[in-house]
Amino acid sequence: MDNQLLDRVSIILVEPAGALNVGSVARVMKNMGLKRLVLVKPHCDHLGAEALQMAVHASDVLSLAVRVETLPEALTGCQRAIATTARERNFPLKLESPKDALPWLLEEPLQTALIFGPEDRGLSNQELNYAQRFINIPSNPEYPSLNLAQAVAVCSYELFQLTQQPITHTPTTPDLASLDFLESYYQQLETLLLKIGYLYPHTASARMEKLRRLHSQGQLTQSDVTMLRGILSQVNWALGQK
Amino acid sequence: MDNQLLDRVSIILVEPAGALNVGSVARVMKNMGLKRLVLVKPHCDHLGAEALQMAVHASDVLSLAVRVETLPEALTGCQRAIATTARERNFPLKLESPKDALPWLLEEPLQTALIFGPEDRGLSNQELNYAQRFINIPSNPEYPSLNLAQAVAVCSYELFQLTQQPITHTPTTPDLASLDFLESYYQQLETLLLKIGYLYPHTASARMEKLRRLHSQGQLTQSDVTMLRGILSQVNWALGQK
Repeated sequence: MDNQLLDRVSIILVEPAGALNVGSVARVMKNMGLKRLVLVKPHCDHLGAEALQMAVHASDVLSLAVRVETLPEALTGCQRAIATTARERNFPLKLESPKDALPWLLEEPLQTALIFGPEDRGLSNQELNYAQRFINIPSNPEYPSLNLAQAVAVCSYELFQLTQQPITHTPTTPDLASLDFLESYYQQLETLLLKIGYLYPHTASARMEKLRRLHSQGQLTQSDVTMLRGILSQVNWALGQK
Repeated sequence: MDNQLLDRVSIILVEPAGALNVGSVARVMKNMGLKRLVLVKPHCDHLGAEALQMAVHASDVLSLAVRVETLPEALTGCQRAIATTARERNFPLKLESPKDALPWLLEEPLQTALIFGPEDRGLSNQELNYAQRFINIPSNPEYPSLNLAQAVAVCSYELFQLTQQPITHTPTTPDLASLDFLESYYQQLETLLLKIGYLYPHTASARMEKLRRLHSQGQLTQSDVTMLRGILSQVNWALGQK
Protein backbone atom coordinates (compact mmCIF):
# COMPACT_ATOMS: atom_id res chain seq x y z
CA MET A 1 0.00 0.00 0.00
CA ASP A 2 1.14 3.49 -0.78
CA ASN A 3 0.65 5.19 2.57
CA GLN A 4 1.99 8.52 1.42
CA LEU A 5 -0.80 8.81 -1.12
CA LEU A 6 -3.42 8.75 1.63
CA ASP A 7 -1.41 11.13 3.81
CA ARG A 8 -2.46 13.88 1.41
CA VAL A 9 -6.11 13.61 2.39
CA SER A 10 -7.63 15.33 5.44
CA ILE A 11 -11.02 14.22 6.69
CA ILE A 12 -12.84 17.33 7.93
CA LEU A 13 -15.87 16.95 10.19
CA VAL A 14 -17.87 20.18 10.54
CA GLU A 15 -19.51 20.56 13.97
CA PRO A 16 -19.86 16.87 14.76
CA ALA A 17 -22.28 16.35 17.68
CA GLY A 18 -21.71 12.72 18.64
CA ALA A 19 -18.56 11.52 20.37
CA LEU A 20 -19.43 7.94 19.36
CA ASN A 21 -19.50 9.07 15.74
CA VAL A 22 -16.15 10.85 15.99
CA GLY A 23 -14.62 7.73 17.56
CA SER A 24 -16.07 5.53 14.80
CA VAL A 25 -14.74 7.91 12.17
CA ALA A 26 -11.24 7.65 13.67
CA ARG A 27 -11.38 3.86 13.63
CA VAL A 28 -12.51 3.53 10.04
CA MET A 29 -10.00 6.18 8.93
CA LYS A 30 -7.18 4.11 10.41
CA ASN A 31 -8.68 0.92 8.94
CA MET A 32 -8.47 2.61 5.56
CA GLY A 33 -5.02 4.11 5.96
CA LEU A 34 -6.14 7.71 6.60
CA LYS A 35 -4.54 9.72 9.40
CA ARG A 36 -5.45 13.38 9.20
CA LEU A 37 -8.63 14.27 11.05
CA VAL A 38 -9.73 17.90 11.41
CA LEU A 39 -12.66 18.87 13.63
CA VAL A 40 -14.40 22.18 13.02
CA LYS A 41 -16.02 23.45 16.24
CA PRO A 42 -16.93 19.96 17.53
CA HIS A 43 -19.93 19.79 19.89
CA CYS A 44 -18.50 16.81 21.71
CA ASP A 45 -15.31 15.70 23.42
CA HIS A 46 -13.24 13.87 20.84
CA LEU A 47 -10.84 12.67 23.54
CA GLY A 48 -13.50 11.54 26.00
CA ALA A 49 -14.48 8.01 26.96
CA GLU A 50 -17.19 7.57 24.32
CA ALA A 51 -14.95 8.59 21.44
CA LEU A 52 -12.09 6.42 22.69
CA GLN A 53 -14.43 3.46 23.17
CA MET A 54 -15.45 3.54 19.51
CA ALA A 55 -11.98 4.33 18.20
CA VAL A 56 -10.53 1.15 19.82
CA HIS A 57 -7.01 0.97 18.34
CA ALA A 58 -7.30 4.33 16.56
CA SER A 59 -6.91 6.58 19.57
CA ASP A 60 -3.80 7.97 17.86
CA VAL A 61 -6.01 9.42 15.12
CA LEU A 62 -8.05 11.18 17.81
CA SER A 63 -5.07 12.51 19.72
CA LEU A 64 -3.49 13.83 16.52
CA ALA A 65 -6.77 15.39 15.40
CA VAL A 66 -6.66 19.13 14.81
CA ARG A 67 -9.40 21.24 16.32
CA VAL A 68 -10.27 24.52 14.60
CA GLU A 69 -13.01 27.13 14.75
CA THR A 70 -13.96 27.58 11.11
CA LEU A 71 -14.05 25.57 7.89
CA PRO A 72 -11.68 27.94 6.05
CA GLU A 73 -9.19 27.41 8.87
CA ALA A 74 -9.56 23.64 8.43
CA LEU A 75 -8.84 24.02 4.75
CA THR A 76 -5.61 25.98 5.26
CA GLY A 77 -2.94 24.48 3.00
CA CYS A 78 -5.41 22.32 1.07
CA GLN A 79 -5.47 22.63 -2.69
CA ARG A 80 -8.50 20.52 -3.48
CA ALA A 81 -11.63 19.87 -1.45
CA ILE A 82 -14.67 17.72 -2.00
CA ALA A 83 -17.81 18.18 0.10
CA THR A 84 -20.36 15.46 0.82
CA THR A 85 -24.08 16.06 0.86
CA ALA A 86 -27.23 13.99 1.22
CA ARG A 87 -29.28 16.58 -0.65
CA GLU A 88 -30.16 15.63 -4.15
CA ARG A 89 -33.23 17.60 -5.15
CA ASN A 90 -32.74 21.21 -6.06
CA PHE A 91 -29.03 20.92 -5.53
CA PRO A 92 -27.63 23.61 -7.78
CA LEU A 93 -24.28 21.96 -8.47
CA LYS A 94 -23.11 18.76 -10.08
CA LEU A 95 -23.30 15.79 -7.72
CA GLU A 96 -20.96 12.88 -8.26
CA SER A 97 -20.60 9.40 -6.82
CA PRO A 98 -17.64 8.67 -4.51
CA LYS A 99 -16.18 6.42 -7.20
CA ASP A 100 -16.20 9.20 -9.79
CA ALA A 101 -15.01 12.07 -7.65
CA LEU A 102 -12.58 10.63 -5.10
CA PRO A 103 -9.69 9.77 -7.46
CA TRP A 104 -9.32 13.52 -7.91
CA LEU A 105 -8.09 13.78 -4.30
CA LEU A 106 -5.18 11.43 -4.97
CA GLU A 107 -4.16 11.90 -8.56
CA GLU A 108 -1.89 14.92 -8.11
CA PRO A 109 0.72 15.59 -5.42
CA LEU A 110 -1.54 18.09 -3.66
CA GLN A 111 -2.96 18.51 -0.18
CA THR A 112 -6.63 17.59 -0.32
CA ALA A 113 -9.70 17.40 1.91
CA LEU A 114 -12.98 15.58 2.14
CA ILE A 115 -15.63 17.49 4.12
CA PHE A 116 -18.57 16.04 6.07
CA GLY A 117 -21.36 18.10 7.65
CA PRO A 118 -23.03 17.90 11.07
CA GLU A 119 -25.22 14.84 11.77
CA ASP A 120 -28.51 16.73 11.91
CA ARG A 121 -28.33 19.25 9.09
CA GLY A 122 -25.46 18.36 6.79
CA LEU A 123 -23.34 21.08 5.21
CA SER A 124 -24.97 24.47 4.62
CA ASN A 125 -24.85 26.17 1.24
CA GLN A 126 -22.18 28.47 2.54
CA GLU A 127 -20.05 25.56 3.75
CA LEU A 128 -20.53 23.70 0.48
CA ASN A 129 -19.13 26.70 -1.33
CA TYR A 130 -15.66 26.06 0.10
CA ALA A 131 -15.43 22.85 -1.93
CA GLN A 132 -14.86 22.45 -5.65
CA ARG A 133 -16.62 19.14 -6.16
CA PHE A 134 -19.59 17.45 -4.47
CA ILE A 135 -20.27 13.88 -3.55
CA ASN A 136 -23.59 12.22 -2.93
CA ILE A 137 -23.38 8.61 -1.74
CA PRO A 138 -25.87 6.52 -3.76
CA SER A 139 -28.60 5.33 -1.40
CA ASN A 140 -32.20 4.24 -1.03
CA PRO A 141 -34.53 7.20 -1.69
CA GLU A 142 -36.78 5.93 1.11
CA TYR A 143 -34.04 6.64 3.66
CA PRO A 144 -31.07 8.29 2.00
CA SER A 145 -29.41 9.84 5.03
CA LEU A 146 -26.39 7.87 6.21
CA ASN A 147 -24.93 8.07 9.68
CA LEU A 148 -21.87 10.34 9.67
CA ALA A 149 -19.40 7.55 10.48
CA GLN A 150 -20.96 5.30 7.82
CA ALA A 151 -20.60 8.03 5.20
CA VAL A 152 -16.94 8.42 6.17
CA ALA A 153 -16.57 4.62 6.03
CA VAL A 154 -17.87 4.40 2.47
CA CYS A 155 -15.65 7.24 1.21
CA SER A 156 -12.57 6.01 3.10
CA TYR A 157 -13.09 2.52 1.69
CA GLU A 158 -13.23 3.94 -1.83
CA LEU A 159 -10.10 6.01 -1.22
CA PHE A 160 -8.21 3.04 0.17
CA GLN A 161 -9.15 0.92 -2.80
CA LEU A 162 -7.66 3.48 -5.14
CA THR A 163 -4.27 2.82 -3.53
CA GLN A 164 -4.58 -0.93 -3.95
CA GLN A 165 -4.09 -3.46 -6.63
CA PRO A 166 -6.91 -5.98 -6.60
CA ILE A 167 -6.22 -8.23 -3.64
CA THR A 168 -7.63 -11.55 -4.66
CA HIS A 169 -5.80 -13.86 -2.31
CA THR A 170 -5.68 -17.39 -3.65
CA PRO A 171 -4.13 -20.12 -1.57
CA THR A 172 -1.31 -22.04 -3.23
CA THR A 173 -2.65 -24.35 -5.90
CA PRO A 174 -3.65 -27.50 -4.15
CA ASP A 175 -2.17 -30.83 -4.97
CA LEU A 176 -4.93 -31.99 -7.35
CA ALA A 177 -5.73 -35.69 -7.38
CA SER A 178 -4.32 -37.64 -10.29
CA LEU A 179 -7.00 -38.99 -12.59
CA ASP A 180 -5.96 -42.59 -12.07
CA PHE A 181 -6.22 -42.23 -8.32
CA LEU A 182 -9.68 -40.70 -8.77
CA GLU A 183 -10.58 -43.56 -11.08
CA SER A 184 -9.63 -46.17 -8.50
CA TYR A 185 -11.83 -44.33 -6.03
CA TYR A 186 -14.78 -44.51 -8.45
CA GLN A 187 -14.20 -48.25 -8.85
CA GLN A 188 -14.13 -48.71 -5.11
CA LEU A 189 -17.32 -46.64 -4.75
CA GLU A 190 -19.15 -48.61 -7.45
CA THR A 191 -18.18 -51.92 -5.90
CA LEU A 192 -19.47 -50.79 -2.51
CA LEU A 193 -22.71 -49.36 -3.89
CA LEU A 194 -23.39 -52.63 -5.72
CA LYS A 195 -22.63 -54.59 -2.56
CA ILE A 196 -25.09 -52.64 -0.42
CA GLY A 197 -27.77 -52.79 -3.08
CA TYR A 198 -27.79 -49.06 -3.85
CA LEU A 199 -26.77 -49.83 -7.44
CA TYR A 200 -27.99 -52.67 -9.62
CA PRO A 201 -25.66 -54.09 -12.26
CA HIS A 202 -27.90 -53.04 -15.19
CA THR A 203 -28.33 -49.41 -14.06
CA ALA A 204 -24.98 -48.87 -12.38
CA SER A 205 -23.24 -47.07 -15.22
CA ALA A 206 -25.85 -44.29 -15.60
CA ARG A 207 -25.87 -43.57 -11.87
CA MET A 208 -22.07 -43.74 -11.65
CA GLU A 209 -21.84 -41.14 -14.42
CA LYS A 210 -23.92 -38.80 -12.31
CA LEU A 211 -21.67 -39.42 -9.31
CA ARG A 212 -18.54 -38.84 -11.37
CA ARG A 213 -19.92 -35.55 -12.63
CA LEU A 214 -20.74 -34.49 -9.10
CA HIS A 215 -17.20 -35.24 -7.93
CA SER A 216 -15.49 -33.58 -10.84
CA GLN A 217 -17.17 -30.23 -10.16
CA GLY A 218 -15.06 -29.78 -7.07
CA GLN A 219 -11.35 -29.81 -7.59
CA LEU A 220 -10.48 -32.82 -5.50
CA THR A 221 -6.99 -33.03 -4.13
CA GLN A 222 -4.97 -36.17 -3.53
CA SER A 223 -5.72 -35.91 0.19
CA ASP A 224 -9.47 -35.41 -0.46
CA VAL A 225 -9.56 -38.63 -2.45
CA THR A 226 -7.48 -40.42 0.19
CA MET A 227 -10.05 -39.33 2.76
CA LEU A 228 -13.01 -40.46 0.63
CA ARG A 229 -11.34 -43.82 0.02
CA GLY A 230 -10.76 -44.14 3.77
CA ILE A 231 -14.48 -43.67 4.36
CA LEU A 232 -15.34 -46.37 1.84
CA SER A 233 -12.86 -48.80 3.40
CA GLN A 234 -14.33 -48.16 6.80
CA VAL A 235 -17.90 -48.75 5.56
CA ASN A 236 -16.69 -51.98 4.02
CA TRP A 237 -15.05 -52.97 7.27
CA ALA A 238 -18.21 -52.18 9.25
CA LEU A 239 -20.27 -54.30 6.85
CA GLY A 240 -17.87 -57.20 7.35
CA GLN A 241 -18.42 -57.05 11.13
CA LYS A 242 -21.83 -58.72 10.80
CA MET B 1 -33.81 1.03 -8.24
CA ASP B 2 -34.74 -2.63 -8.36
CA ASN B 3 -35.77 -3.19 -4.77
CA GLN B 4 -36.76 -6.79 -5.29
CA LEU B 5 -33.19 -7.67 -6.17
CA LEU B 6 -32.02 -6.69 -2.69
CA ASP B 7 -34.93 -8.50 -1.04
CA ARG B 8 -33.11 -11.74 -1.83
CA VAL B 9 -30.25 -10.92 0.50
CA SER B 10 -30.33 -11.59 4.24
CA ILE B 11 -27.76 -9.94 6.46
CA ILE B 12 -26.87 -12.42 9.19
CA LEU B 13 -25.11 -11.21 12.34
CA VAL B 14 -23.67 -14.04 14.42
CA GLU B 15 -23.75 -13.31 18.16
CA PRO B 16 -23.54 -9.53 17.91
CA ALA B 17 -22.61 -8.07 21.32
CA GLY B 18 -23.30 -4.36 20.86
CA ALA B 19 -26.79 -2.92 20.63
CA LEU B 20 -25.33 0.27 19.13
CA ASN B 21 -23.77 -1.81 16.39
CA VAL B 22 -26.99 -3.67 15.64
CA GLY B 23 -28.86 -0.36 15.44
CA SER B 24 -26.20 1.08 13.09
CA VAL B 25 -26.41 -2.03 10.95
CA ALA B 26 -30.19 -1.61 10.64
CA ARG B 27 -29.79 2.01 9.58
CA VAL B 28 -27.19 1.38 6.91
CA MET B 29 -29.14 -1.62 5.64
CA LYS B 30 -32.18 0.57 5.07
CA ASN B 31 -29.98 3.31 3.56
CA MET B 32 -28.80 0.70 1.08
CA GLY B 33 -32.19 -0.87 0.35
CA LEU B 34 -31.69 -4.05 2.40
CA LYS B 35 -34.48 -5.29 4.66
CA ARG B 36 -33.80 -8.78 5.93
CA LEU B 37 -31.81 -8.89 9.15
CA VAL B 38 -31.22 -12.20 10.96
CA LEU B 39 -29.61 -12.29 14.40
CA VAL B 40 -28.01 -15.51 15.58
CA LYS B 41 -28.03 -15.68 19.39
CA PRO B 42 -27.58 -11.91 19.88
CA HIS B 43 -25.89 -10.89 23.15
CA CYS B 44 -27.78 -7.61 23.24
CA ASP B 45 -31.30 -6.26 23.02
CA HIS B 46 -31.92 -5.39 19.38
CA LEU B 47 -35.18 -3.65 20.30
CA GLY B 48 -33.80 -1.70 23.25
CA ALA B 49 -33.11 2.01 23.50
CA GLU B 50 -29.49 1.89 22.29
CA ALA B 51 -30.30 -0.05 19.14
CA LEU B 52 -33.28 2.18 18.34
CA GLN B 53 -31.20 5.30 18.93
CA MET B 54 -28.67 4.26 16.28
CA ALA B 55 -31.26 2.90 13.85
CA VAL B 56 -33.07 6.30 13.73
CA HIS B 57 -35.58 5.81 10.88
CA ALA B 58 -34.77 2.12 10.42
CA SER B 59 -36.58 0.77 13.47
CA ASP B 60 -38.71 -1.27 11.04
CA VAL B 61 -35.61 -3.27 10.08
CA LEU B 62 -35.06 -4.04 13.77
CA SER B 63 -38.66 -4.99 14.48
CA LEU B 64 -38.76 -7.27 11.43
CA ALA B 65 -35.42 -8.85 12.36
CA VAL B 66 -35.53 -12.60 12.88
CA ARG B 67 -33.83 -14.01 15.95
CA VAL B 68 -32.54 -17.59 15.81
CA GLU B 69 -30.32 -19.84 17.89
CA THR B 70 -27.91 -21.25 15.29
CA LEU B 71 -26.28 -20.24 12.04
CA PRO B 72 -27.77 -23.21 10.12
CA GLU B 73 -31.19 -22.06 11.28
CA ALA B 74 -30.43 -18.57 9.98
CA LEU B 75 -29.50 -20.07 6.62
CA THR B 76 -32.72 -22.05 6.21
CA GLY B 77 -33.98 -21.54 2.67
CA CYS B 78 -30.81 -19.78 1.50
CA GLN B 79 -29.04 -21.15 -1.53
CA ARG B 80 -25.91 -19.05 -1.50
CA ALA B 81 -23.98 -17.65 1.40
CA ILE B 82 -20.90 -15.48 1.66
CA ALA B 83 -19.02 -15.10 4.94
CA THR B 84 -16.87 -12.13 5.86
CA THR B 85 -13.56 -12.47 7.66
CA ALA B 86 -10.74 -10.18 8.75
CA ARG B 87 -8.23 -13.04 8.72
CA GLU B 88 -5.87 -13.04 5.81
CA ARG B 89 -2.77 -14.92 6.86
CA ASN B 90 -2.98 -18.68 6.82
CA PHE B 91 -6.56 -18.54 5.64
CA PRO B 92 -6.93 -21.82 3.77
CA LEU B 93 -9.62 -20.69 1.33
CA LYS B 94 -9.84 -18.14 -1.44
CA LEU B 95 -10.53 -14.64 -0.12
CA GLU B 96 -12.23 -12.16 -2.39
CA SER B 97 -12.95 -8.46 -2.28
CA PRO B 98 -16.57 -7.31 -1.78
CA LYS B 99 -16.57 -6.02 -5.35
CA ASP B 100 -15.62 -9.41 -6.78
CA ALA B 101 -17.79 -11.66 -4.64
CA LEU B 102 -20.98 -9.72 -3.93
CA PRO B 103 -22.50 -9.77 -7.45
CA TRP B 104 -22.84 -13.54 -6.92
CA LEU B 105 -25.54 -12.85 -4.30
CA LEU B 106 -27.71 -11.00 -6.80
CA GLU B 107 -27.07 -12.51 -10.20
CA GLU B 108 -29.52 -15.43 -9.93
CA PRO B 109 -33.06 -15.51 -8.56
CA LEU B 110 -31.91 -17.27 -5.38
CA GLN B 111 -32.20 -16.59 -1.68
CA THR B 112 -28.82 -15.48 -0.44
CA ALA B 113 -27.06 -14.45 2.73
CA LEU B 114 -24.11 -12.39 3.84
CA ILE B 115 -22.71 -13.47 7.21
CA PHE B 116 -20.83 -11.31 9.73
CA GLY B 117 -19.16 -12.63 12.88
CA PRO B 118 -19.14 -11.36 16.46
CA GLU B 119 -17.30 -8.10 17.16
CA ASP B 120 -14.52 -9.64 19.25
CA ARG B 121 -13.62 -12.84 17.46
CA GLY B 122 -15.15 -12.84 13.98
CA LEU B 123 -16.49 -16.05 12.49
CA SER B 124 -14.96 -19.35 13.66
CA ASN B 125 -13.72 -21.94 11.20
CA GLN B 126 -16.83 -23.95 11.82
CA GLU B 127 -19.06 -20.96 11.10
CA LEU B 128 -17.09 -20.06 7.97
CA ASN B 129 -17.73 -23.53 6.64
CA TYR B 130 -21.42 -22.79 6.22
CA ALA B 131 -20.56 -20.33 3.47
CA GLN B 132 -19.39 -21.02 -0.04
CA ARG B 133 -17.41 -17.85 -0.66
CA PHE B 134 -15.37 -15.57 1.58
CA ILE B 135 -14.95 -11.84 1.65
CA ASN B 136 -12.13 -9.85 3.14
CA ILE B 137 -12.62 -6.08 3.05
CA PRO B 138 -9.40 -4.49 1.82
CA SER B 139 -7.90 -2.50 4.68
CA ASN B 140 -4.75 -1.12 6.25
CA PRO B 141 -2.56 -3.98 7.54
CA GLU B 142 -1.69 -1.82 10.55
CA TYR B 143 -5.29 -1.97 11.73
CA PRO B 144 -7.36 -4.20 9.49
CA SER B 145 -10.26 -4.93 11.81
CA LEU B 146 -13.35 -2.89 10.92
CA ASN B 147 -16.18 -2.20 13.31
CA LEU B 148 -19.08 -4.57 12.61
CA ALA B 149 -21.46 -1.86 11.43
CA GLN B 150 -18.76 -0.37 9.20
CA ALA B 151 -18.12 -3.74 7.60
CA VAL B 152 -21.85 -4.09 6.94
CA ALA B 153 -21.87 -0.53 5.57
CA VAL B 154 -19.14 -1.23 3.04
CA CYS B 155 -20.76 -4.45 1.82
CA SER B 156 -24.27 -2.95 1.74
CA TYR B 157 -22.96 0.01 -0.24
CA GLU B 158 -21.39 -2.34 -2.77
CA LEU B 159 -24.61 -4.37 -3.02
CA PHE B 160 -26.71 -1.25 -3.51
CA GLN B 161 -24.43 -0.02 -6.26
CA LEU B 162 -24.93 -3.29 -8.11
CA THR B 163 -28.63 -2.53 -8.37
CA GLN B 164 -27.83 0.83 -9.92
CA GLN B 165 -26.25 -0.72 -12.98
CA PRO B 166 -27.12 -3.69 -15.18
CA ILE B 167 -25.87 -6.98 -13.76
CA THR B 168 -24.15 -9.41 -16.05
CA HIS B 169 -26.41 -12.38 -16.18
CA THR B 170 -24.79 -15.78 -16.27
CA PRO B 171 -26.80 -18.75 -17.53
CA THR B 172 -29.20 -20.07 -14.92
CA THR B 173 -27.58 -22.65 -12.73
CA PRO B 174 -29.65 -25.73 -12.01
CA ASP B 175 -31.73 -26.09 -8.93
CA LEU B 176 -29.01 -25.53 -6.30
CA ALA B 177 -29.42 -27.33 -3.00
CA SER B 178 -30.69 -25.18 -0.17
CA LEU B 179 -28.15 -24.81 2.61
CA ASP B 180 -30.44 -26.36 5.20
CA PHE B 181 -30.90 -29.46 3.04
CA LEU B 182 -27.14 -29.69 2.63
CA GLU B 183 -26.80 -29.26 6.39
CA SER B 184 -29.12 -32.20 7.09
CA TYR B 185 -26.98 -34.27 4.72
CA TYR B 186 -23.85 -33.35 6.71
CA GLN B 187 -25.60 -34.34 9.92
CA GLN B 188 -26.59 -37.68 8.41
CA LEU B 189 -23.04 -38.22 7.14
CA GLU B 190 -21.50 -37.40 10.51
CA THR B 191 -23.87 -39.75 12.34
CA LEU B 192 -23.01 -42.58 9.95
CA LEU B 193 -19.26 -41.96 10.12
CA LEU B 194 -19.41 -42.01 13.90
CA LYS B 195 -21.43 -45.20 13.80
CA ILE B 196 -18.95 -47.06 11.60
CA GLY B 197 -16.01 -45.82 13.64
CA TYR B 198 -14.53 -43.64 10.89
CA LEU B 199 -14.96 -40.60 13.12
CA TYR B 200 -14.38 -40.37 16.84
CA PRO B 201 -16.44 -37.92 18.88
CA HIS B 202 -13.42 -35.83 19.92
CA THR B 203 -12.00 -35.42 16.41
CA ALA B 204 -15.24 -35.40 14.44
CA SER B 205 -15.56 -31.66 13.99
CA ALA B 206 -12.15 -31.11 12.37
CA ARG B 207 -12.68 -33.93 9.92
CA MET B 208 -16.25 -32.85 9.19
CA GLU B 209 -14.94 -29.36 8.41
CA LYS B 210 -12.70 -30.88 5.76
CA LEU B 211 -15.63 -32.83 4.32
CA ARG B 212 -17.86 -29.76 4.26
CA ARG B 213 -15.21 -27.79 2.44
CA LEU B 214 -14.81 -30.57 -0.07
CA HIS B 215 -18.55 -30.59 -0.75
CA SER B 216 -18.99 -26.86 -0.98
CA GLN B 217 -16.41 -26.59 -3.77
CA GLY B 218 -18.82 -28.25 -6.16
CA GLN B 219 -22.15 -26.54 -6.66
CA LEU B 220 -24.40 -29.34 -5.44
CA THR B 221 -27.97 -29.38 -6.70
CA GLN B 222 -31.00 -30.50 -4.75
CA SER B 223 -30.96 -33.79 -6.69
CA ASP B 224 -27.23 -34.33 -6.02
CA VAL B 225 -27.86 -34.05 -2.30
CA THR B 226 -30.93 -36.30 -2.55
CA MET B 227 -28.71 -38.89 -4.23
CA LEU B 228 -25.96 -38.59 -1.61
CA ARG B 229 -28.52 -38.91 1.16
CA GLY B 230 -29.94 -42.00 -0.59
CA ILE B 231 -26.50 -43.60 -0.53
CA LEU B 232 -26.12 -42.92 3.19
CA SER B 233 -29.55 -44.39 3.93
CA GLN B 234 -28.69 -47.48 1.97
CA VAL B 235 -25.38 -47.92 3.82
CA ASN B 236 -27.29 -47.58 7.06
CA TRP B 237 -29.80 -50.15 5.93
CA ALA B 238 -27.05 -52.58 4.90
CA LEU B 239 -25.40 -52.15 8.31
CA GLY B 240 -28.71 -53.01 9.95
CA GLN B 241 -28.93 -56.27 8.02
CA LYS B 242 -26.27 -57.84 10.22
